[in-house]
Amino acid sequence: MERLPGFRDFYPEPLPDPNAWSADLRRHVFDAWRDSARRYGFREYDGPPLETLELYTAKSGAEIVGQLYNFTDKGGREVTLRPEMTPTLARMAGAHDRQYRKPLKWFTIPQLFRYERQQKGRLREHFQFNADIIGEKAAAADAELMALLIDSLRALGLTRADFMLRLSSRNAWQEFFNRRCADAAKAYDFYQAIDKLEREAPAVSESRLVALGFSLDEVRAFIAAGQPTEELQRILDDLAMRGLADFVKVDYGVIRGLAYYTGPVFEAFDCQGEFRAIAGGGRYDNLVQLVSNGKVDLPALGFGMGDVVLTELLKARGLSPKNVARLDAFVLIEDESLRPDSLKLLQTLRDAGLAADYPLVAAKSDKQFKRALEANATHTVRLERSAAGSMMARIKQLAARTEEVVSVTEVVRALQ
Amino acid sequence: MERLPGFRDFYPEPLPDPNAWSADLRRHVFDAWRDSARRYGFREYDGPPLETLELYTAKSGAEIVGQLYNFTDKGGREVTLRPEMTPTLARMAGAHDRQYRKPLKWFTIPQLFRYERQQKGRLREHFQFNADIIGEKAAAADAELMALLIDSLRALGLTRADFMLRLSSRNAWQEFFNRRCADAAKAYDFYQAIDKLEREAPAVSESRLVALGFSLDEVRAFIAAGQPTEELQRILDDLAMRGLADFVKVDYGVIRGLAYYTGPVFEAFDCQGEFRAIAGGGRYDNLVQLVSNGKVDLPALGFGMGDVVLTELLKARGLSPKNVARLDAFVLIEDESLRPDSLKLLQTLRDAGLAADYPLVAAKSDKQFKRALEANATHTVRLERSAAGSMMARIKQLAARTEEVVSVTEVVRALQ
Repeated sequence: MERLPGFRDFYPEPLPDPNAWSADLRRHVFDAWRDSARRYGFREYDGPPLETLELYTAKSGAEIVGQLYNFTDKGGREVTLRPEMTPTLARMAGAHDRQYRKPLKWFTIPQLFRYERQQKGRLREHFQFNADIIGEKAAAADAELMALLIDSLRALGLTRADFMLRLSSRNAWQEFFNRRCADAAKAYDFYQAIDKLEREAPAVSESRLVALGFSLDEVRAFIAAGQPTEELQRILDDLAMRGLADFVKVDYGVIRGLAYYTGPVFEAFDCQGEFRAIAGGGRYDNLVQLVSNGKVDLPALGFGMGDVVLTELLKARGLSPKNVARLDAFVLIEDESLRPDSLKLLQTLRDAGLAADYPLVAAKSDKQFKRALEANATHTVRLERSAAGSMMARIKQLAARTEEVVSVTEVVRALQ
Repeated sequence: MERLPGFRDFYPEPLPDPNAWSADLRRHVFDAWRDSARRYGFREYDGPPLETLELYTAKSGAEIVGQLYNFTDKGGREVTLRPEMTPTLARMAGAHDRQYRKPLKWFTIPQLFRYERQQKGRLREHFQFNADIIGEKAAAADAELMALLIDSLRALGLTRADFMLRLSSRNAWQEFFNRRCADAAKAYDFYQAIDKLEREAPAVSESRLVALGFSLDEVRAFIAAGQPTEELQRILDDLAMRGLADFVKVDYGVIRGLAYYTGPVFEAFDCQGEFRAIAGGGRYDNLVQLVSNGKVDLPALGFGMGDVVLTELLKARGLSPKNVARLDAFVLIEDESLRPDSLKLLQTLRDAGLAADYPLVAAKSDKQFKRALEANATHTVRLERSAAGSMMARIKQLAARTEEVVSVTEVVRALQ
């Protein structure tokens, strides 16, 4: 039996085939994300992987349904596997608005789902680091969020040579739009045209823009000028105070596709231009109000960073760690009469917090040693009786190829 | 908009209401599970939350569909949110049998799903720690797996006074059955009757058993005798070598409901008898062969431990940790002219791996301090200019109420 198309299995390393996804690399990425969030004072939350379809159609309209992994459940409810986390967050924050002091700084690492019928071979799920700040209008919040994004990528070993953030503004584009067009109903289509500029042939973009009353040249001139608005300048100044100015440039070529963004928006991208955007986010000051049916009105902003592009980038830059899983000790049992004492020692090691393994059944010496090497053990430990008849432990450090013989009570200390 | 019935939101502590689920407690449990698996040399894997319906009906028959969160996807496939992890593991291990040396020791922490139409208020999802050993027939593997289960519970602060394992054997029940009944087709119904003994009225059990040709008395006598089989005795001896004998007793009242178990089976339960089983597992030596359509034949065993009963038990025993999220430093900014230097310091602290937060916008002194307390900060740090004009940092340790003033370059060291 096969797994469903577009879904992934995650295997322990060494991987069974070069195209398999690594559970160890995923763990490495999740740990870096979580630790970065901790350093920034963000708190973890989570919601259900399944939500009502209405949670997404309310803000994005019915056309989004074509991309959702939605279905009718056995109770007749219209439901969907979550395509993104922001509506869930808005629902949760809206439901308990009064119980939490603002601003909230929250993060989560959900698995997200899309179903696009026509695109075969494309993944239908991915994991995404989501960090959001709720309840603060000031540009300081945008800077804090972007700083977290920068440091999450640095925590994985990526540097300024590998990635940058492009900072843009829905407000700047809104002004651009308002100066030239009085029909607010066209704004969404205009944003979509800007969002597609870098991915479409110029002729296609031009015809989209002309149909809306704009020219490709004036749009390109606005992007090329790249003058930061006051709002963006405040963000840049804040990041400069942190020593992170080098990681950000203003680039109005970014606008972000989602309908609900309201202010500054940004993307992280790889400097060599090989990959799709690594992460993206921005302000969505109206969404909490929309999702809470007007009960709670809170400014908010957030970003999402997926695991797929990021792990491709880490592998391309040689930043995928090797042999992350490690045993502190492999307990060799060459004399089966020592199995009871060896199991007792094993338990002592594990009780002390050490990672320890052993041969479940009697096995030849060289087979046991091979297993210790495969398990990436730093030491082997073998019990033996001294000439005087007392029980001793022979500890071999595998990298240094050094050996020592200690009493059984000294093994934990010798391994630490 | 509301979340779907039977699904949970996980909030950061302090919780917005007493019935809310804690993301911090969930993290505490996941960390203990993962660290226990690491100490035992188990490697992490994961599969898709959505699988083909066939993966489950192949081994359990069509009647299981009534309990599944299944649906037809947009591509016309019969799919289901995974109700358990074992078939996915058997599928994954079967697909790459030759690439991994046996035995495999693998773990995962999936979210699992059930849909039972009639039971309102019951959860439709939970998280489950799954650990499995694949490719070893010897009783040593059963003992190793049960030792991991015991130590996973001890890692959360539970002791022998809180929980025990009941060890039973499908083989022992099979023999019991074979001695009295020649119709193998009745065996599954007989196991189901044994499984329900403790949850049903005696009269109901009696009529079930009599219909199959057994009496309640002979079944009860067999359970009361509780003689360990040779196979179970080997497991008990192995656990005794580890010093874990006290945590296990033979109890044929356990049989486990799932059809695919083949040998020893076990459950962890709370000693006060307040909760449903904390965990359960056993051998399923035929499942890998079944799921791989006969291509791979590997003995296997595993357990699952859900988060719901476990967190209820931890809370009931006072073992739910308080204030797990912690800031190393809250940087107070009382003089806004010091904001640039304060942000620089903040970045230095975070770069050093410390968890640090600060006021995003200008705020009154007491409000900032309150925020530091709410965030469970161990220290506040405030920049100030010395009389000589140099920049100093005043560090307050909040628990001890002690203060020191150090130079800006000394702050990281003072906080570590």
